[in-house]
Amino acid sequence: MKFSIHRQAFIKSLNDVQRAVASKTTIPILTGIKLVVTNDALILTGSDSELTIESTISTDEEESQLIIQKTGAVVLPSRFFGEIIKKLPSDTVTIEVNDHFQATISSGSASFTLNGIDVYEYPHLPEIDSDQVIVLPVPLLRQMIQQTIISASVEESRPILSGIHFVLKDNLLKAVATDSHRLSQRIIPLQIDALENSLEYEFTIPRKTLIELSRIIEGLETIELSIKENLALFQTEHLSFFSRLLDGRYPDVERLIVVENTTQLVIQANELLNAAERASLMSNANSSKVAKITLSSDSVRLTSQSPEIGTVEEELSYESTEGSPMEISFNPDYLKDALRTFGHSEIVITFNSVIRPFKLEPKDPLSSIDNSFVQLITPVRTFA
Amino acid sequence: MKFSIHRQAFIKSLNDVQRAVASKTTIPILTGIKLVVTNDALILTGSDSELTIESTISTDEEESQLIIQKTGAVVLPSRFFGEIIKKLPSDTVTIEVNDHFQATISSGSASFTLNGIDVYEYPHLPEIDSDQVIVLPVPLLRQMIQQTIISASVEESRPILSGIHFVLKDNLLKAVATDSHRLSQRIIPLQIDALENSLEYEFTIPRKTLIELSRIIEGLETIELSIKENLALFQTEHLSFFSRLLDGRYPDVERLIVVENTTQLVIQANELLNAAERASLMSNANSSKVAKITLSSDSVRLTSQSPEIGTVEEELSYESTEGSPMEISFNPDYLKDALRTFGHSEIVITFNSVIRPFKLEPKDPLSSIDNSFVQLITPVRTFA
Repeated sequence: MKFSIHRQAFIKSLNDVQRAVASKTTIPILTGIKLVVTNDALILTGSDSELTIESTISTDEEESQLIIQKTGAVVLPSRFFGEIIKKLPSDTVTIEVNDHFQATISSGSASFTLNGIDVYEYPHLPEIDSDQVIVLPVPLLRQMIQQTIISASVEESRPILSGIHFVLKDNLLKAVATDSHRLSQRIIPLQIDALENSLEYEFTIPRKTLIELSRIIEGLETIELSIKENLALFQTEHLSFFSRLLDGRYPDVERLIVVENTTQLVIQANELLNAAERASLMSNANSSKVAKITLSSDSVRLTSQSPEIGTVEEELSYESTEGSPMEISFNPDYLKDALRTFGHSEIVITFNSVIRPFKLEPKDPLSSIDNSFVQLITPVRTFA
Repeated sequence: MKFSIHRQAFIKSLNDVQRAVASKTTIPILTGIKLVVTNDALILTGSDSELTIESTISTDEEESQLIIQKTGAVVLPSRFFGEIIKKLPSDTVTIEVNDHFQATISSGSASFTLNGIDVYEYPHLPEIDSDQVIVLPVPLLRQMIQQTIISASVEESRPILSGIHFVLKDNLLKAVATDSHRLSQRIIPLQIDALENSLEYEFTIPRKTLIELSRIIEGLETIELSIKENLALFQTEHLSFFSRLLDGRYPDVERLIVVENTTQLVIQANELLNAAERASLMSNANSSKVAKITLSSDSVRLTSQSPEIGTVEEELSYESTEGSPMEISFNPDYLKDALRTFGHSEIVITFNSVIRPFKLEPKDPLSSIDNSFVQLITPVRTFA
């Protein structure tokens, strides 16, 4: 195997696939990057066995200046290989691998040798036939992920909750996440061809996959999604993104989203976020994080206290309130996360009772779809 | 105690004094910031008992908008107090402390209470009379620190080596640091008044003090230094910087700096730095970090190897070599640190033998003073 390539183009691909490489793994070869050189392309692969990222650089792409002299394959230690490539002195790098899987990396006057491993030891990826491909608009997909991932659980106790649950049905794509204390839902319309209109999918993608996906696809227009058995494949021209799906049945959360309206508050998301950040300075000092919002007919107050440190109290500026007075306690960190997904827009908060979740949604709906963007937060029960 | 102040001016002072506050300390009150309000100034103090920083904001300074309503003093928990001040909603903050040392912090519609402590429990600072003040040029002082601090020891085994040793004599200020594997020396001329010409000082200032000092005084022109017993005081208009001096006798390193010339290399510091960074990729993989430089009459090569990972080898571009061939092994991390202090300038490296330190100095001397800027590195002995 021997090829030369423009170093910056190579670094970009390397950075992409390295995102999937686990620093700790029980399968040692997965700490490596797989390089495969075919007659017309260089394919890099990184994987932690749950998530696999493949980047393809073709000889057709002029800016990559890829010149293939001999086909072949090797697995090289990811961290060292990446650091070496990034520190080379010249714009071009040549990599040659001998029969003992030893790579010689040359650039300008510097020359590295790096011990590699036979590629046959690297796990094989399943084939996914691309008969049923769903084309997703990247900016909207990234927005969906950002708006819901806050509620995906970071704990291991119920694995199914550590992902975002997607439902594709009737030309709508719905994303839901919940850690059982809060819930996020976003629904977007999808233009699906008549032929594929009958497609119905339900699947849960792990949090980590979606964080990496969202990062890597920034700036792209569309991405193709295929689902097969327990695997999702996201594909762009240069990148393939394989992810294991989470096993198990996602809980039915539909009924939670209906919040009967006792009290409503209309407020700037940003205004409330700043106050919640101040309140959480106090609540963070306690083992149980609690802040309290008190709505009366003519004022809205946010308060929090820490017996050791002190108290915080704030009168909020708001657009309007409606309904019965309400005093409700909650974790201000959850409120902060939820509020950040609304940016600077005006939101409606609907309360039912002190023991029922309250609902945040944009005052100006994002679409005509019911509950197209909702954040739910479960209150904390307190004695006071 | 009661005052109001422009929040940004207050944050600047807070940030400065917080640099001295230790996150962990055996003296609980030192996790606090001391606030003292006099008739015409607000004085903030932070300390970890080794380093104390005091910032004074006077009512004369217009931009601080300091209005004093009642004098007094209190100690407030540093982290919470800082976070609260930084997150307040308005440009102005008012702080009022009651007889129970409880502070009320108000800004816009937000109001915090914070439990404080009686200021009498806070350690007292010694008085330093300022009869004998040395005026130091800040840019040159910061350069001196940056050029020598790399060799100050980060280990605790010989405390005296964990600082920079300063010698003031004959209108020269010398700074030396060594961790016994390498040594840095910088000498600058000082314009000292005839009256103070007889001043002679020798003192060793801890590494941490100098790092914080260097950071805080950036952008200033001059700073005043007074030394008394085991304390140094650096002073500007608004800041006082008290530091404990390190106890003990600094080793005599003068004789080390004379390196008999067997072989000389003239090279761009930056060129060698880039190669050393590549070499250290390999050496970092080993428990003993070693790279090797090989000088012959017509080439200079830098090499390093890791039995598990691979090798690196590089022909260097250089200006000139002179003297006998030389092959010398060393820790490339030490070389990197030393080279960074020279920027992009051309340097002369003088070698004597494979067991004697080699010396780096600028090709164009910084001043007419002998050895005004020197980096020494002790080689590593190897079998190969």
